[in-house]
Amino acid sequence: MSQRNICVEQYLETPIEKQQIELVERKGIGHPDSIADGLAESVSRALCKEYIDKCGVILHHNTDETQIAAGHSIPRFGGGSVIHPIYILLVGRATKAFNGVDIATDTIALKTARRYLKETLPNLDLESDIVLDCKFGRGSSDLSDVFGRPGYVPMANDTSFGVGHAPFSELENIVYNTERSLIEDLKKKRGMQAVGEDIKVMGLRNGEDITLTICCGMVDKYIDDIGAYISYKEQIQNYVEDLAAKYTNRKVSVFINTADDIKSESVFLTVTGTSAEMGDDGSVGRGNRSNGLITPNRPMSMEATSGKNPINHIGKIYNLMSTQIARRIAAEIDGIDDVYVKLLSQIGKPIDQPLVASVQISVKDGVKFDSMRKEAEGIVDEWLCDTKKITEMVSKGELNTF
Amino acid sequence: MSQRNICVEQYLETPIEKQQIELVERKGIGHPDSIADGLAESVSRALCKEYIDKCGVILHHNTDETQIAAGHSIPRFGGGSVIHPIYILLVGRATKAFNGVDIATDTIALKTARRYLKETLPNLDLESDIVLDCKFGRGSSDLSDVFGRPGYVPMANDTSFGVGHAPFSELENIVYNTERSLIEDLKKKRGMQAVGEDIKVMGLRNGEDITLTICCGMVDKYIDDIGAYISYKEQIQNYVEDLAAKYTNRKVSVFINTADDIKSESVFLTVTGTSAEMGDDGSVGRGNRSNGLITPNRPMSMEATSGKNPINHIGKIYNLMSTQIARRIAAEIDGIDDVYVKLLSQIGKPIDQPLVASVQISVKDGVKFDSMRKEAEGIVDEWLCDTKKITEMVSKGELNTF
Amino acid sequence: MSQRNICVEQYLETPIEKQQIELVERKGIGHPDSIADGLAESVSRALCKEYIDKCGVILHHNTDETQIAAGHSIPRFGGGSVIHPIYILLVGRATKAFNGVDIATDTIALKTARRYLKETLPNLDLESDIVLDCKFGRGSSDLSDVFGRPGYVPMANDTSFGVGHAPFSELENIVYNTERSLIEDLKKKRGMQAVGEDIKVMGLRNGEDITLTICCGMVDKYIDDIGAYISYKEQIQNYVEDLAAKYTNRKVSVFINTADDIKSESVFLTVTGTSAEMGDDGSVGRGNRSNGLITPNRPMSMEATSGKNPINHIGKIYNLMSTQIARRIAAEIDGIDDVYVKLLSQIGKPIDQPLVASVQISVKDGVKFDSMRKEAEGIVDEWLCDTKKITEMVSKGELNTF
Amino acid sequence: MSQRNICVEQYLETPIEKQQIELVERKGIGHPDSIADGLAESVSRALCKEYIDKCGVILHHNTDETQIAAGHSIPRFGGGSVIHPIYILLVGRATKAFNGVDIATDTIALKTARRYLKETLPNLDLESDIVLDCKFGRGSSDLSDVFGRPGYVPMANDTSFGVGHAPFSELENIVYNTERSLIEDLKKKRGMQAVGEDIKVMGLRNGEDITLTICCGMVDKYIDDIGAYISYKEQIQNYVEDLAAKYTNRKVSVFINTADDIKSESVFLTVTGTSAEMGDDGSVGRGNRSNGLITPNRPMSMEATSGKNPINHIGKIYNLMSTQIARRIAAEIDGIDDVYVKLLSQIGKPIDQPLVASVQISVKDGVKFDSMRKEAEGIVDEWLCDTKKITEMVSKGELNTF
Repeated sequence: MSQRNICVEQYLETPIEKQQIELVERKGIGHPDSIADGLAESVSRALCKEYIDKCGVILHHNTDETQIAAGHSIPRFGGGSVIHPIYILLVGRATKAFNGVDIATDTIALKTARRYLKETLPNLDLESDIVLDCKFGRGSSDLSDVFGRPGYVPMANDTSFGVGHAPFSELENIVYNTERSLIEDLKKKRGMQAVGEDIKVMGLRNGEDITLTICCGMVDKYIDDIGAYISYKEQIQNYVEDLAAKYTNRKVSVFINTADDIKSESVFLTVTGTSAEMGDDGSVGRGNRSNGLITPNRPMSMEATSGKNPINHIGKIYNLMSTQIARRIAAEIDGIDDVYVKLLSQIGKPIDQPLVASVQISVKDGVKFDSMRKEAEGIVDEWLCDTKKITEMVSKGELNTF
Repeated sequence: MSQRNICVEQYLETPIEKQQIELVERKGIGHPDSIADGLAESVSRALCKEYIDKCGVILHHNTDETQIAAGHSIPRFGGGSVIHPIYILLVGRATKAFNGVDIATDTIALKTARRYLKETLPNLDLESDIVLDCKFGRGSSDLSDVFGRPGYVPMANDTSFGVGHAPFSELENIVYNTERSLIEDLKKKRGMQAVGEDIKVMGLRNGEDITLTICCGMVDKYIDDIGAYISYKEQIQNYVEDLAAKYTNRKVSVFINTADDIKSESVFLTVTGTSAEMGDDGSVGRGNRSNGLITPNRPMSMEATSGKNPINHIGKIYNLMSTQIARRIAAEIDGIDDVYVKLLSQIGKPIDQPLVASVQISVKDGVKFDSMRKEAEGIVDEWLCDTKKITEMVSKGELNTF
Repeated sequence: MSQRNICVEQYLETPIEKQQIELVERKGIGHPDSIADGLAESVSRALCKEYIDKCGVILHHNTDETQIAAGHSIPRFGGGSVIHPIYILLVGRATKAFNGVDIATDTIALKTARRYLKETLPNLDLESDIVLDCKFGRGSSDLSDVFGRPGYVPMANDTSFGVGHAPFSELENIVYNTERSLIEDLKKKRGMQAVGEDIKVMGLRNGEDITLTICCGMVDKYIDDIGAYISYKEQIQNYVEDLAAKYTNRKVSVFINTADDIKSESVFLTVTGTSAEMGDDGSVGRGNRSNGLITPNRPMSMEATSGKNPINHIGKIYNLMSTQIARRIAAEIDGIDDVYVKLLSQIGKPIDQPLVASVQISVKDGVKFDSMRKEAEGIVDEWLCDTKKITEMVSKGELNTF
Repeated sequence: MSQRNICVEQYLETPIEKQQIELVERKGIGHPDSIADGLAESVSRALCKEYIDKCGVILHHNTDETQIAAGHSIPRFGGGSVIHPIYILLVGRATKAFNGVDIATDTIALKTARRYLKETLPNLDLESDIVLDCKFGRGSSDLSDVFGRPGYVPMANDTSFGVGHAPFSELENIVYNTERSLIEDLKKKRGMQAVGEDIKVMGLRNGEDITLTICCGMVDKYIDDIGAYISYKEQIQNYVEDLAAKYTNRKVSVFINTADDIKSESVFLTVTGTSAEMGDDGSVGRGNRSNGLITPNRPMSMEATSGKNPINHIGKIYNLMSTQIARRIAAEIDGIDDVYVKLLSQIGKPIDQPLVASVQISVKDGVKFDSMRKEAEGIVDEWLCDTKKITEMVSKGELNTF
């Protein structure tokens, strides 16, 4: 029996696969909100590395207020141009000096952000299409102090909670992997350059019918004319239908760029692969939750995870940890339909002592819950015993945050 | 039978009051995220009014990217000072000209924001403690055109969804009303000036035990010394305990400012009533959902509601409408434990024709679901028939968004 | 004989009043460049006061990068409106902490700037017509150290020079006093509210003919129609002609707002009294020199004087001191047509030991130069002996900088 | 006889070479003020080219408000690092659309600025050491209209003047060429990489003694230690002494980095070659006049020349033209010591009809002035007849502006 306040309960609900309506959304890596998340998290990772290199410990920082203000572009078959640059502001707090060592937080952030953009949005011209600004305030010096002490469990920075669930439903798997595969497989491996990085997948399951509504910004310079555009859309549709069939036997309907007006050739073209070029602003924490999805049928937290420091930012640590716990419970304990984990902190209390760690398990028909309790408690306890594990996994880039 | 795609299903779950663990959070009106929400929404309202006055229709705008970067202050018993101002950036898009009429979007926004701040944060010195910046991009002129046509159902601006639930649980009522009463009753009516506007209430129900963890920024100039501070905390605790008793028979424990260190007199003092003065940044859409709460035990949407235009911004309209629908169903149909409403749009389709309108009803023990379906469908249909109602209610300030 | 490197020489030139062509310009206090100067200087003065109050010494600061970006307005007879606010950025460097005392540099700057604007531009609505931003970097801590030592002559912060001349020519007196009297006498005392603060006076003397070209932004709400506007222009013209006659017997022609097109009623109206509302940006140091004029017939320095710290900023101190020296020489020594003073520093050397202090004296016909040398040297030496005098006069607001 | 209002007069003065004290200053291309000038002018040139390419005419723009806010660096023998980036803001006005054609003003500005910085400051790492921001307001559409009409003489945009003088004195030649040769010859041709681009040369002539005080930011990574630094300073001193001897027989003393403290190794090192990295802000129009110098012994204009449009911006056109006129008069007419040219516009009047064009000629001993008048008038008239010549020379980059 754990001394931690762990509460494992049986939860009765219509299992997700049997609910009539299920909604799942994923914003791809080139969606403005995801670009903001990605920049915030990559900058935080770079700072973690620099802090460790220069000072031996990760110092206080939160780079999670990154903002993206859309530019203006004139896409055109064969290649258009960006008229007004995208404005990207890296903002937050970072410790800039520690024990007499100056940390080049802002220059590191700029270099990291440019590298991230180069890798993530290969069609974005970094010489002309973006304004990249950086305004970090100073981190709290008290926190710097605390962070420096070895063998110390940090205090929660806030009264806040994280949530996680497992396993993914069919629809969750389809939505997540549709975006991932369009970029990593169809574009990068199979060479369909016309696919932009700004892909939003909205999945609806209505009973046994799945509808995928996909908005995909196409890259204009790889598309000669409206005919080519239509052909690309068909190829993408076929590709997604085939992909979805690996995850479900349900009927899947795929819609691409439903706002297109083919007759007037008003279609979803971009110069750079992201709609940030022409109208859509982006912010950290407004898009995918840390498991990569937006799932209104599941518990969610509002906390932005990307860019938060992985030492004492409870919103980040508990969200990531809840998901890890849920996944391990689902993987190791048989007979589970769905498992929901919630971790709640109280500001100023050690992060390994949540006010409550709640596990709700929906068991499969005919399975007994009682024996699960202890095993689940053990898994929760193990993760809470080693809160630094999440910190390390984040620093090393082993955990996605969006 | 409705021609709209309305799907009402019975949903089986452990009713909220019978789940072992329930979490509910509310960020008060002076929390930096709420200030951002409040500014965004009040500016949007002012623009709606101006557009109607000058042009006869509401024109395209989204003022939902408001950012608040914390200042620096030195609070002190008896009255401290703000050292570095809070930076507030009103940002988004707004139509600045229509049919040859220039709209003073930015000057209206500044005036509105200053008025909102004055009313909401009476201890903030607007002459010195804030930098108020405003950078609105131009709204899409195509949208301007569409918005102008009378008798026209707008097209969804995005593939997106809104969610709502009803009725409030005991804990939801307690958390919501704790913050509201501390400001509106204890501070304004009963005159406890020491209560600041930055109140965060985190509610945990573990079976029959309710724990309220309250962070309340106290206003330094009304508090003479640490003794007075302790006394105020006790009065607040008593007040909240009494208040909670009106909503529940469960045992309620109240914790105020748990990070205080009384010995070193390191306590939660503020000069202005908001922690935006000294460390906490704020963004639109990161705090309360449109029902005023954050509820991980309930379906939620990630969409920022505040500051979005109330004409075609589906994230705003469907979230507000879902909540209205859920509340009406819960109020008008007997025998319901919980009702969950989800509305999903498809970009470019009329907003009165969602891809799906899902209603999940968890019925009380012994109650029959079947008869509920038609009545619920009728309520959904009625709201969808009159999408302009939400627009009007928003413009008139009849609907809260955070 | 002075040990300082003072060089007094006779300078042969056509005296200013006998040169055929003379040009003199003054930008009034409501000209965007002058607003920038005035804000920079008033903020510096407020910081000086705060530093002395809190720390006993003036600490390092330079608030001389203030920028004004024009807004957009629609002036109209009877009263128009500002559509887009004027953006004002207070920027520079300021010491924010000294011996453990935090200095509220930015909040003081904001409060001071708002007060200055209120007094200088009474028709500017500070609630809506401006965005006032403030971004001070930190001052050099080494300098803070130096500044703190009592009885210490500061080292020059730069290799730089200041210049001054005396006495004012007829045209210089006319141009300077035209602007000053239009505001202080015609507007404030005699109540002609229609006169705006943005007045630019360009004086040309061609032999015995003086032409004054005056651009004067009129305030729309005090002017009913084009007829009233024409009448005001005539009154101003008469007023200036009368005024000029006090300073000269030459023929004076006055032109007001020569770009006006009366027929189309396209005239120089403003809502606020300054063209910063609709097109003209402003910067510190681009307008009047520290004597209040721009005089291409006289030696000038490029240095911005306003907003520089009055302790070691050589560009400020030497420009102000040169003018004081020149004026005293011209006042105390008989027989002088024109006197020009130049002070040159070398970075790192004490400011009371210029690399050279040059005095060029143009003597009246028949007057002997030789006897003047010693007296002039004495005056220079006296000022250099007491460099703190300039510092004190600046801090107390006894010296204008533009 | 010209119909233009041209006034050529004999001007009596001590010729510059015979005045006891002469001061001349030049800020090198890497000085923060010069970087601002250079960016403003190169962006204006790029816009001129784009406007001509896309629209056939140069459209209204003024990119002359470029601001540079210093960063923070830690230079170190062998190579230090930039800790906080330099912030560069390109700001001003530019016509963004003309006859339905969108002009990518801001993306062009960014690309041009990055290229300029790369060429001018080879040791500046553009990936991390700068934030490059761009905020152009819209140009006046009325002006766009005017600019488009062929065969049209533009109206002066302001009541303003330009000045010029010729020929250069010995000291002016020495100061100008010292900076130019240190960069173009010593650094680029002879390979002394240690020389940074931020060179300020202050020349003082006291009778027959010339003192050059040079501040030269050295580039740390090319200098191993204090010994190497001292050696470089000696080499530069010798180089400048040799160079100066080409222009004068007077005695020349050269001082390099007089604020250095060799003992404590506190010397003028930089990482990037410019002091913008660590303390010195920069603005357009605060540094060199359009002839490349600051000359308090000569008439000067306060107008920023860099970044102004070369069509109707009188401050730019008249300053450049005055210098061209003066140089031609000095070159073509024998017997001249010094010639001063001043051109004065009146707002709204054609730029080829100045209110006055003043030429002041100081003739050599024994030379008669009378015959010069007509020839000088002819030269002035010729330039005023062809105001487009300046526009073209500017657009093609044939005229320096700082």
